[in-house]
Amino acid sequence: MTTKKLSELGEFGLIDKIADMLRTFESDELTKGIGDDCAVLKSSCKDEGYLLLTTDMLVEGDHFDRSWQSPRQIGWKSIIANISDIAAMGGLPKWGLISIAFPDYITESFADELFEGMVSSSQKYGLDLVGGDTTHGDDLVVNVALIGEVEKEFLSLRGDAKEGDLICVSGDLGKSWAGLELLRAGEEGYTDYYLSPDCRLELGRDIAKHVNGMIDVSDGLASEVTHISEESGLGAEVYKQKVPISERTKRTGEILDKDPMWWALSGGEDFELVFTIPPEKLEMINDKDISVVGKMIDEGLYLINEEGQKEKLEGGYNHFG
Amino acid sequence: MTTKKLSELGEFGLIDKIADMLRTFESDELTKGIGDDCAVLKSSCKDEGYLLLTTDMLVEGDHFDRSWQSPRQIGWKSIIANISDIAAMGGLPKWGLISIAFPDYITESFADELFEGMVSSSQKYGLDLVGGDTTHGDDLVVNVALIGEVEKEFLSLRGDAKEGDLICVSGDLGKSWAGLELLRAGEEGYTDYYLSPDCRLELGRDIAKHVNGMIDVSDGLASEVTHISEESGLGAEVYKQKVPISERTKRTGEILDKDPMWWALSGGEDFELVFTIPPEKLEMINDKDISVVGKMIDEGLYLINEEGQKEKLEGGYNHFG
Repeated sequence: MTTKKLSELGEFGLIDKIADMLRTFESDELTKGIGDDCAVLKSSCKDEGYLLLTTDMLVEGDHFDRSWQSPRQIGWKSIIANISDIAAMGGLPKWGLISIAFPDYITESFADELFEGMVSSSQKYGLDLVGGDTTHGDDLVVNVALIGEVEKEFLSLRGDAKEGDLICVSGDLGKSWAGLELLRAGEEGYTDYYLSPDCRLELGRDIAKHVNGMIDVSDGLASEVTHISEESGLGAEVYKQKVPISERTKRTGEILDKDPMWWALSGGEDFELVFTIPPEKLEMINDKDISVVGKMIDEGLYLINEEGQKEKLEGGYNHFG
Repeated sequence: MTTKKLSELGEFGLIDKIADMLRTFESDELTKGIGDDCAVLKSSCKDEGYLLLTTDMLVEGDHFDRSWQSPRQIGWKSIIANISDIAAMGGLPKWGLISIAFPDYITESFADELFEGMVSSSQKYGLDLVGGDTTHGDDLVVNVALIGEVEKEFLSLRGDAKEGDLICVSGDLGKSWAGLELLRAGEEGYTDYYLSPDCRLELGRDIAKHVNGMIDVSDGLASEVTHISEESGLGAEVYKQKVPISERTKRTGEILDKDPMWWALSGGEDFELVFTIPPEKLEMINDKDISVVGKMIDEGLYLINEEGQKEKLEGGYNHFG
């Protein structure tokens, strides 16, 4: 393992290294990748298609912790979080731009592993990393900007939910936050998903033509249902006992004496999909790993417990809280 | 002036504010801006056109200093630096994604002014800011990712220079670094261009069909000519006495007892265009504000002084230096 500091390697040396790593992913559509002022791309230019643009900034201390997460895991997650946004639109990721501020203490091998994590998650989902910027900073900061494409008939907006739609969620929720709480507490347990999450790109493509509103789980179910409701000008009710929480996540709740329902509703980073679908279309997708957790209503946001009692649906992680 | 802290406003409040500011710029091509997982765009989809992608990360302390620069100036420059990259490809900026990490001490009015700076430079050049991400960090970090478009016949790559081409530069060089040196020294003088630089988008469009290689001045003339040479597999000679340095920049050199030629060759952030053109095409563009400063040769990189003596062309600002 080399421990050469980035200050010895120099900015241009670093760009060359990244370019070498990324050049292997040049595709027919990429006319010019790293080594010019911009990446140059040939869009597949479907007459009835759209470009999708999304970006996320991750800051050490707020979004990741080097004492828990390997550089490879930090890189992997930074890409997955953005692909998840593309999945939530029914689209496919095409091109990525990465910007990184490296503090002085970062070694070359750390940077290598960070890129490897980015490259491996990109490869898994057919994303080409076509350019970026590296600079110096006191904190490690990773910004990912993705460009995707979506055909008109696949486009799934948050605001397209209809009254009477069922609210569905893929997989299970709270698993990512459960891992974070274990790491914070220094306890053993299931932390894999928090450290190396996945996203639901394939599922998003499979269901996009059937769903109305769709969003990914970045901030917890309560927050995502609130977004869908607000953008659609509707209300929603979520049935507490239908919220999918795995046995493993429940056990983590017991170990830590915390409520896994809070993690599901407000934890976030599960990168599952939340979508609404007319009841008559449910059979078209009921072979998938999904749960019906609620219904779009005229107005109001409610969480309904086993006894049918309503409380206000609240949650969402506030980075400034 | 409100001095509410961002921690009181909350992340979602902040996104709403940005959305309000940006919604005014929604265009026909923007199907969905802020308020979904991705921005959704209709590319003009020219059969013979390309998408251009570029990104830059600016970190407080390394790229800007709040004691010298107003938030409006920081925002303005962050956009200009990226539009300059699009200009250097012969393209037009279309859509921008902005990511910002705000430290606790940042006030709402600071954030407002930062966005206003971004919006005003974007408006000047027809760029729509269509999305972004705001988060928390110990240092203020601004990342801008731009998507542009260019017709095939306008595309101007660094690597398209030909042996015998004249090397030209727009405007004058060293003016930005001169301002930075004044600010560092706490001296009065011409700091406007450093604080609020401009870029050469119109000129880029005007000359793109005639030039061979093109690049913008981010790191100084020596560095840019080196990039053009390396990407084109050629050498270059630059005539020292032809490098355009304004009287104002020369006076700043005298005040500070520093060599303005170093600022021109290695200072950077002038955002002028450096391009190569066959001698017979020079007349097509000689009504523009440009200087011929050198020639593309077979191999070697030289700076030639008034007496015809050659030295090695060296320079370029290294962020890890």
